[in-house]
Amino acid sequence: MTDTPTSIAQLVTPCCLIEKSKLLNNIARLSAHIGELGCSLRPHVKTHKSVDVTKLIEDGGNVTGITVSTLQEAQHFFANGYTNILYAVGIVPNKLATAASLIEQGCDLKVIFDNVSMATMITEKAAEFDCTFKVLIELDTDGHRSGIEPANQALLDIAELVKQSKNIALCGVMTHAGESYSCFTHEDQLAMARQERDLSLLAAERLRAAGFECPMVSIGSTPTAFAIDDLTGITEVRAGVYAFFDLVMAGLNVCGVEDIAISVLASVIGHQTEKQWAITDAGWMAMSRDRGTANHPTDQGYGLVCDITGNSLNDYIVYDANQEHGIIRHKNVDHAMNYNAFPLASVIRVLPNHACSTAAQFSHYYLVDKEKVIEKWHVTRGW
Amino acid sequence: MTDTPTSIAQLVTPCCLIEKSKLLNNIARLSAHIGELGCSLRPHVKTHKSVDVTKLIEDGGNVTGITVSTLQEAQHFFANGYTNILYAVGIVPNKLATAASLIEQGCDLKVIFDNVSMATMITEKAAEFDCTFKVLIELDTDGHRSGIEPANQALLDIAELVKQSKNIALCGVMTHAGESYSCFTHEDQLAMARQERDLSLLAAERLRAAGFECPMVSIGSTPTAFAIDDLTGITEVRAGVYAFFDLVMAGLNVCGVEDIAISVLASVIGHQTEKQWAITDAGWMAMSRDRGTANHPTDQGYGLVCDITGNSLNDYIVYDANQEHGIIRHKNVDHAMNYNAFPLASVIRVLPNHACSTAAQFSHYYLVDKEKVIEKWHVTRGW
Repeated sequence: MTDTPTSIAQLVTPCCLIEKSKLLNNIARLSAHIGELGCSLRPHVKTHKSVDVTKLIEDGGNVTGITVSTLQEAQHFFANGYTNILYAVGIVPNKLATAASLIEQGCDLKVIFDNVSMATMITEKAAEFDCTFKVLIELDTDGHRSGIEPANQALLDIAELVKQSKNIALCGVMTHAGESYSCFTHEDQLAMARQERDLSLLAAERLRAAGFECPMVSIGSTPTAFAIDDLTGITEVRAGVYAFFDLVMAGLNVCGVEDIAISVLASVIGHQTEKQWAITDAGWMAMSRDRGTANHPTDQGYGLVCDITGNSLNDYIVYDANQEHGIIRHKNVDHAMNYNAFPLASVIRVLPNHACSTAAQFSHYYLVDKEKVIEKWHVTRGW
Repeated sequence: MTDTPTSIAQLVTPCCLIEKSKLLNNIARLSAHIGELGCSLRPHVKTHKSVDVTKLIEDGGNVTGITVSTLQEAQHFFANGYTNILYAVGIVPNKLATAASLIEQGCDLKVIFDNVSMATMITEKAAEFDCTFKVLIELDTDGHRSGIEPANQALLDIAELVKQSKNIALCGVMTHAGESYSCFTHEDQLAMARQERDLSLLAAERLRAAGFECPMVSIGSTPTAFAIDDLTGITEVRAGVYAFFDLVMAGLNVCGVEDIAISVLASVIGHQTEKQWAITDAGWMAMSRDRGTANHPTDQGYGLVCDITGNSLNDYIVYDANQEHGIIRHKNVDHAMNYNAFPLASVIRVLPNHACSTAAQFSHYYLVDKEKVIEKWHVTRGW
């Protein structure tokens, strides 16, 4: 590991740390749960955009393939040996050339759409290429964002359209219960998970009853993946953020704060004693602008502050951030700051609200064991 | 320009566009204003992180050097011929080696600190290197973030400490009136600008009266840079976001929406007609998580939607965003959506809340003239 410091105190701040033991625990926890339910995982690599993290997830077991959020991720992971890839954002005609190139190179790529008009445009455009595009129909099972409702006639219309096309193959249905991020209790998460599952099974049954094949029934979000208690009929579960976890997931009690594997290492660059602030060099460029806990019972600002080894200081948050400045203060604005915990030029760790948005701010991670740097990992990005 | 499409309709979405005529107008406007006041500009490159943009700013005139927010930016711009560089985030001892390396290669780098204890640590650490570190003392002129108050004794204590050190040279004082982002009228912006100027001049006068040299008096923020009417005694003005402008600046009436040079090109990937939404492939990974207009009289969501040529559709915003999905709807939730403006697979432009955070999500910009792509420019990043 040429030129990489062996102690995190020597790293240039801000930088992104991944605590190895926590990463492995998180991975093992979901792999075990999904395995116990007799199902498979298709981890979403958008959270970490890292081949190294994905290898550990594979080692965790029960992995059938990967999910990506961009075709750039598909290209990067395919170049690194991953062939079974689901691109989980609706495809548009002018992205088919990139998809075709991957398929022609041997990538088992699956794409999605959720609309008769778009399906028509895609089938027309697909005819220009010499390959078969595998598609899943995206379902809306929670009113969150995209997808067609499972009971909608459009489901069958799309399937029929695909059947008529010469180089599109229907592989099944998929959904993402994004509304689970608003479920603060296990009961609500379980109810959402069952709804996600049941509505997906309904769509699959409707397709099969109408004579269409539906080999894949793909569901998932981190909260519903952990909450679900029966996956009969579901072929795979997609989840991403669980590998790192974050304050949003801790706020939903899907994990504890102590399970969060990702943190940003920051240097204390100033003390504003009159305001009872400490200033760091990790602003929103490092933390991201994500304020995912703003509507939670506990608002963690731009992140929760830990000591250099990752032990939470509990009462301190990054209460505000500029591009390259973070402002730390006590959660209780009237509470005096203990500056002994924040000496000038010392380093601290900050747990982020949202692992996906913070991780994407960095070009690499340092895999660490407390204060020891184990490895430096590459992070891909872009479109 | 190998492999770069000549029409923006051919670009892979999401991507970042810079409208050349608007960029040039914005640059010319501030260069002219600062020139008329007999002062110089030290543009902040953190907004665009682009050598190509900086060259145009230099061409605009009255430029004395550049401001950076990271030492990585300093390294990148120095490697591209820029020598007069102010690193405008408080330095810590473990960053001095990188600073020393730049100085030894011929970079006229200036660093800052705002604290007697930090100044002590820096002077001690600096003695390990064979070069002279130029420093400015950071002032707090608005209670926004960092800096010492101009009337504080610490100002003179730091100057004395620097004077005693063998390889630190005091170059002056600097401040940033970040609170100007909360000034919604020209009167408030002018008052803030005068305060920023007058308190900086006070600090400079105190230093000089005590026998210290203070050749540089550096101030700036985009709102105060445009508002200020007299810069006597000020040696340079720093501003960054004005080159691109954004919805936050338009919300403060520092520019018009039509002046915003930066936009994100997105494809329409879905219609959720029951919810009166259109779905695009530009989520918060492309727009950034910045919600800078959330507390403005007009909340622009994650961005204001324009047609392919950049003409605002006015009434449509990216009302919510996921990682790679944007949800467009009418500003008035009860208003029916005109889907004719958002055909499936068509492309639209989205003006961002905050140019700095959106621009940093991309590895390159496409410089455009309406629908024509002129050039592809590299964007640097990291720490």
